[in-house]
Amino acid sequence: MAEVKNKQVVLKDYATGFPKESDMDIVEGTISLNLPEGSNEVLLKNLYLSCDPYMQMLMSKIEGLEGFGTYSPGSPLTGYGVAKVLESGHPDYKKGDLVWGFTKWEEHSLVPSSQILFKIEHTDVPLSYYIGILGIPGMTAYAGFFEVGLPKKGDRVFVSAASGAVDLLKNKLGFDDAFNYKEEPDLNAALKRYFPEGIDIYFENVGGKTLDAVLLNMRVHGRIVVCGMVSQYNLAQPDGVTNLANLIFKRIRIQGFGVADYYQLYPKFLEYVVPKIKEGKIVYVEDIVEGLEKAPPALIGLFSGRNVGKQVIVLARE
Amino acid sequence: MAEVKNKQVVLKDYATGFPKESDMDIVEGTISLNLPEGSNEVLLKNLYLSCDPYMQMLMSKIEGLEGFGTYSPGSPLTGYGVAKVLESGHPDYKKGDLVWGFTKWEEHSLVPSSQILFKIEHTDVPLSYYIGILGIPGMTAYAGFFEVGLPKKGDRVFVSAASGAVDLLKNKLGFDDAFNYKEEPDLNAALKRYFPEGIDIYFENVGGKTLDAVLLNMRVHGRIVVCGMVSQYNLAQPDGVTNLANLIFKRIRIQGFGVADYYQLYPKFLEYVVPKIKEGKIVYVEDIVEGLEKAPPALIGLFSGRNVGKQVIVLARE
Repeated sequence: MAEVKNKQVVLKDYATGFPKESDMDIVEGTISLNLPEGSNEVLLKNLYLSCDPYMQMLMSKIEGLEGFGTYSPGSPLTGYGVAKVLESGHPDYKKGDLVWGFTKWEEHSLVPSSQILFKIEHTDVPLSYYIGILGIPGMTAYAGFFEVGLPKKGDRVFVSAASGAVDLLKNKLGFDDAFNYKEEPDLNAALKRYFPEGIDIYFENVGGKTLDAVLLNMRVHGRIVVCGMVSQYNLAQPDGVTNLANLIFKRIRIQGFGVADYYQLYPKFLEYVVPKIKEGKIVYVEDIVEGLEKAPPALIGLFSGRNVGKQVIVLARE
Repeated sequence: MAEVKNKQVVLKDYATGFPKESDMDIVEGTISLNLPEGSNEVLLKNLYLSCDPYMQMLMSKIEGLEGFGTYSPGSPLTGYGVAKVLESGHPDYKKGDLVWGFTKWEEHSLVPSSQILFKIEHTDVPLSYYIGILGIPGMTAYAGFFEVGLPKKGDRVFVSAASGAVDLLKNKLGFDDAFNYKEEPDLNAALKRYFPEGIDIYFENVGGKTLDAVLLNMRVHGRIVVCGMVSQYNLAQPDGVTNLANLIFKRIRIQGFGVADYYQLYPKFLEYVVPKIKEGKIVYVEDIVEGLEKAPPALIGLFSGRNVGKQVIVLARE
């Protein structure tokens, strides 16, 4: 069997506070490029890896979340990637197929047959889009907004996120308005200024003090779609949210969701979003770094606002 | 016009911390027992008044809740009651009708025609039941549990409440198990003991530290039905809830609700619950005090655990 070197990014130890580059190690293992006789696994060459804020939570030890895909010290990080099939014992995939799905932070990955890989059919858009707007992040926004948020015409929508420059959001990405929370000493006052009539849908990516201020500004029958709480993952003691009594009289729904519950909508999602990308109605920005060695600083950079647009790690382009 | 004396319980000033008897005043006004010509109002003689934990929140000044029925200093408290119609300019009600609905803490109330009053049809159960098991509290439990909680067979259900003695809950009211949170220094450990496989539905009446411990013990796709947060209403600074990140990976729904959104189910609810009361399948306990003067201490008593069963104030029996 042909053994080749296989570089990996592994978790050194659980992160506490903000993760640091030193919480990860680059190690060099080996992997066989041939599947054993009778295997139904799939051998992937990883091309693009995604850096996502939720990975910070998986690097930490948070009570109650054991068994929800949290990383183990000594093992490679996992996440979503675009890959090429090198060998396949699985009837649905053959050598040369381009796929995206759950993989590991390493050059080559052996994927068990039980794991979902999405075959890439549209190749007239950049392949890296399948870890971004055409992959989990795009699908998450779609399912969260439409399926969980249940928008009605005229709804006032607030999205919190580590989004970079306000000018980018307003001038390039088409938001009606945007503000930088670091320039707002009183978040409640800021929300009252931007949403004088209150908020119908809050797409929650931040948590903590932002959620607390939003609760004061929700409208009756408002919906809070909880996608993430990035401000909280790095805290040994998360912020206490104090305004939950607003849920009662305003009859607010807070709904945590995971995109995996909505995978069956993926074809419908592609039908909706691919034309919008081609027509320029949805603008998408990427921040690309080259090489697995750049993966740990790229991941850390998410939390200091270093990246502009979706953080992509390129291992190989084909 | 016949003017009569009309005793009232008014809010003296906004309560801070636990409400005290001195936050309320008994005042004696007058009211006309004749409706003016052409009025479409309804004049009620109040028979039974309900004491409910949510009234504490209406007595406080809580940011973001202005306009949600909070009380004003100098005005009578409001709440649910059973009453007899003395005069009616409304086509749906006539003199002598027994009704229940939203009224004031006073001997006689003039109710605008826009306000919903439910006519009492079943009089073979005690009239006071219409401010309890056959009124808002019963309807709240029904709508919250069935319509918001969406129970499935086998679901593990936790209800938090100021419920009095554990023996009463287990031996008389038919709960599978019960514990006194004051005897549990570690709520998280207690919940793990009572729900080793986790909680599917949490019917939330308490909030704060209880909610925080429950979040650690919810199951995937769990539902938290937020009926009230009685532990929080008396706090100048509510407890911070720190475990909300559990919402994300466990895809938990937290839903605040108000029973008024479910009034159309009232006939269906009666059909469900009246036979169960008559057959003794639902056990109901009341704690009855006599006279409007007893109303302030009865309300305060809710928060010190003085009452056993539903707190009822009798003004008159017919």
